[in-house]
Amino acid sequence: MATLIFPEHPSPVADAEALRKACQGWGTDEKAIISILGRRNAIQRKLIRKAYEDMYQEDLVKRLESELSGDFEKAVYRWTLDPEDRDALLLNVAIKQLPIPDYRVIVEISCIRSHEELLAIKHAYQIRYKHSVEEDLAQHTTGDIRQLLVGLVSVYRYNGKEINARLASSEAEILHRAISEKVFNHEETIRIITTRSKAQVLATLNHFKDDYGTSITKHLRGDLDSDYLSALRTAIRCICDYHKYYEKVVRRALDKPGTDEDSLTRVIITSAEKDLKDIKELFQKRNSRPLEHAVAKDTSGDYKAFLLTLLGKED
Amino acid sequence: MATLIFPEHPSPVADAEALRKACQGWGTDEKAIISILGRRNAIQRKLIRKAYEDMYQEDLVKRLESELSGDFEKAVYRWTLDPEDRDALLLNVAIKQLPIPDYRVIVEISCIRSHEELLAIKHAYQIRYKHSVEEDLAQHTTGDIRQLLVGLVSVYRYNGKEINARLASSEAEILHRAISEKVFNHEETIRIITTRSKAQVLATLNHFKDDYGTSITKHLRGDLDSDYLSALRTAIRCICDYHKYYEKVVRRALDKPGTDEDSLTRVIITSAEKDLKDIKELFQKRNSRPLEHAVAKDTSGDYKAFLLTLLGKED
Repeated sequence: MATLIFPEHPSPVADAEALRKACQGWGTDEKAIISILGRRNAIQRKLIRKAYEDMYQEDLVKRLESELSGDFEKAVYRWTLDPEDRDALLLNVAIKQLPIPDYRVIVEISCIRSHEELLAIKHAYQIRYKHSVEEDLAQHTTGDIRQLLVGLVSVYRYNGKEINARLASSEAEILHRAISEKVFNHEETIRIITTRSKAQVLATLNHFKDDYGTSITKHLRGDLDSDYLSALRTAIRCICDYHKYYEKVVRRALDKPGTDEDSLTRVIITSAEKDLKDIKELFQKRNSRPLEHAVAKDTSGDYKAFLLTLLGKED
Repeated sequence: MATLIFPEHPSPVADAEALRKACQGWGTDEKAIISILGRRNAIQRKLIRKAYEDMYQEDLVKRLESELSGDFEKAVYRWTLDPEDRDALLLNVAIKQLPIPDYRVIVEISCIRSHEELLAIKHAYQIRYKHSVEEDLAQHTTGDIRQLLVGLVSVYRYNGKEINARLASSEAEILHRAISEKVFNHEETIRIITTRSKAQVLATLNHFKDDYGTSITKHLRGDLDSDYLSALRTAIRCICDYHKYYEKVVRRALDKPGTDEDSLTRVIITSAEKDLKDIKELFQKRNSRPLEHAVAKDTSGDYKAFLLTLLGKED
């Protein structure tokens, strides 16, 4: 369930005018920006961008970028984009991150979005960057992590719910053998995680737990933890229970000294109109306090006000 | 250009009735089947299947399968399907071929079809087999050839025409280095061939030819030729000039003692309503005789009559 609150039929023209006013003259009216954009769904935001462009021959997103700053600017900028365009941007930033790509974002988007969403994201990426996600990702990675990430981002998984129990059993054994031999980068492990349907991967991992006593992610740690192993664990978590995964991302982002604003923003803006309510509930359960309180404690100013609005705070 | 000749507005109901009549009673009227189905485009065939199903509560394709036999049956059966469904079937047959998958068909479909066509094929595959192409293919292959084929079938390549000349030069060098070191399965080679846009791959291979004197396919031969190397050469040919590639497939199929009917059928039925005319012209140029003559010489009976009809023979 979503947390975003929005009116049913706002006027895109009135919204565009109000945003124009908020951006003009001395100082920017951040409160007005939050109260409009923080309360509109993706289609409504698209119509506002269109109306703004028609009326003022100016790109609203670029104007906001120049008016605002810091974490607040980043959050508003990304939120205002179409969801597929935002994910394309997030992917590109993650791929180009130095010294190595931010595999978490790449895994999240590949494993959590539906096939149709991922396809729209890859299409948006090509329009934005005149490259495919796959070629950029492959160019910026090597070896096991390349094989894993390119596989995750490119394979068109079967989406059916039916599972093959015999296959789940035999592939749980393959995974166990790879782990016993400490061949974590076993090409069979990558094959199973990247190509099987999510329902089938889940069945295989349940079988693993039944047969070998603990969940596979506990085993997927080398003497020296690698980015590959960490990406593999992330993929497994995103496939198995991404609400739980997102809760953990948010918890760690808030726990970090100084707060990891990028991760916090990412989870909130990409989930606010989808299932942020589920993540909030898990957060409450796991941490015995509401997510809003934790966010309010660790953030400040317009950034804080914007996140709390997306989290469903009433005026 | 296509070779298929078809009327503008045939009646699906009249066609379904005539096909029903051709299939009833003692003996089948193969001539009638050829003169109808061999002269209808994909949409017209779809409408006939629909009309036939509505009128007789029977699947036309299955009925034809039970009435006909041999190469003729195979050709009519595959021709009558929707193009994406036919390619899904071809992929499945190729993947399950023993002792190893028929990589040629997999490479052809992955590299020659457009992104939209390939997506429709993969969707049709999932409906037919309740699996993804990728998981079946990965399960039936290992090592380099798996990485190559799964990459080809799954990556959403950028389709733009613009190329990066600097990149073409540096990646031609990477390919040359891999070849010089006889590391044909260099993961960089697989990366370049599977993820770059077709225009970019072409630019890189042209650069290779300019810099090193001969085309790359001449170099891609080991002391012991492997399926992987052969699949890699096929991929390069399909990306660079698939008409020329198809001409070669047809030429070899006809040259073979006994004729390779499967390959001959495949190229003709998958190209008849697309670009078989171009392949015919290349065949004439390369072999100094018309493709129709060569096909007529090496085939016989209804199978021959059907192929010649698809090749555009007037009654």
